[in-house]
Amino acid sequence: MSVYDKLKSLNISLPALAVPVAAFVPYTRVGKLLYTSGNIAKKDGRPWVGKLGAGVSLAEGQEAARSVAIDLLATLQAATADLNAIRIVKLMVLVNSTPEFTEQHLVANGASELFVAVFGERGQHARSAFGVAQVPLGACVEIELIAEVD
Amino acid sequence: MSVYDKLKSLNISLPALAVPVAAFVPYTRVGKLLYTSGNIAKKDGRPWVGKLGAGVSLAEGQEAARSVAIDLLATLQAATADLNAIRIVKLMVLVNSTPEFTEQHLVANGASELFVAVFGERGQHARSAFGVAQVPLGACVEIELIAEVD
Amino acid sequence: MSVYDKLKSLNISLPALAVPVAAFVPYTRVGKLLYTSGNIAKKDGRPWVGKLGAGVSLAEGQEAARSVAIDLLATLQAATADLNAIRIVKLMVLVNSTPEFTEQHLVANGASELFVAVFGERGQHARSAFGVAQVPLGACVEIELIAEVD
Repeated sequence: MSVYDKLKSLNISLPALAVPVAAFVPYTRVGKLLYTSGNIAKKDGRPWVGKLGAGVSLAEGQEAARSVAIDLLATLQAATADLNAIRIVKLMVLVNSTPEFTEQHLVANGASELFVAVFGERGQHARSAFGVAQVPLGACVEIELIAEVD
Repeated sequence: MSVYDKLKSLNISLPALAVPVAAFVPYTRVGKLLYTSGNIAKKDGRPWVGKLGAGVSLAEGQEAARSVAIDLLATLQAATADLNAIRIVKLMVLVNSTPEFTEQHLVANGASELFVAVFGERGQHARSAFGVAQVPLGACVEIELIAEVD
Repeated sequence: MSVYDKLKSLNISLPALAVPVAAFVPYTRVGKLLYTSGNIAKKDGRPWVGKLGAGVSLAEGQEAARSVAIDLLATLQAATADLNAIRIVKLMVLVNSTPEFTEQHLVANGASELFVAVFGERGQHARSAFGVAQVPLGACVEIELIAEVD
């Protein structure tokens, strides 16, 4: 099953490529390695603002992480024009957290599970997730990704 | 002196491979590059909970970082089956910190010095260390690593 | 225009290579990839101490990020001996932030814009920027960089 059939079966349409909010580009490539910029969570086209442990629930954080993963798919599509050529190598998941919230790994699953659902074995990745003091524009989640391109 | 002889001389036995707490894998490889997931500090098999600057001392933080480095050795062993083929390229050391604690670099030395002791010149690595708001499960230290495999 | 002519036109002289404050090295290389350690902001040779959102202004944070970028140029020069062989691939910009400060992306522009000014198209990079609880020695900004060497 191609990645595009899988996306259709999951009822996911690729959004427009997220435009960086500052002086950088959405991705760079060195040989087979593709590095994306950190993408912040958005809701209805605006930053998905909030903090885990202070108003944003675990379920909302997971949904935000999943939405960032979908935005990252659009970045990978723009970078390679063929998602079937992609393997997900590593995620860094930044969770906007109070000093008490300790379920960053469960928030990050919102993204990780989407990648495995879409790419299957080629979606299995290494990952770091942790709680940060803030994220640009106050977004609740930010994710950067390293992929391998065939 | 092989890495295994060195480990014996340091009285270090490799633990079991740390099982990810969520939807990801312990490591991925692209060509010669090996990426590990972030490993959290553990004590007696459970998360080593606490915050530097609020109850966890510098010496404890260093010991926690050293224990994560030993867990990462087990990951590298599982990934390559021969630690003599490994060079340590880069560490990212996340220290669960109050907003006032500023000795993340000294905490991180607990891991860095272990890698140099075990691998010698091939253990010399680039590194970033910084203080984060929280770490999954409340652990005091989390470390991810990039290695080169011969 | 060579990178060195560009530096001259920007009135930038390369500082001495920043010496790591702990048990690691300034950079490592794997094939064409060059990984630098996280460099902290310095002022008059000492850590540029402070927190965005609590005393350090946005303009100061941007100036601090720019100064780290110049220190990183010295690292790249030491690593390759020819800055014309360098392409900037990715930055990770850590901003020492209160839980309320949300302009990490604008702080990071202080570094990103310098790299584009110096390297032109080869300075365009992917980037993550976020707010951390603290930085070693209390510095207001820390940056690590991945470059490609021709």
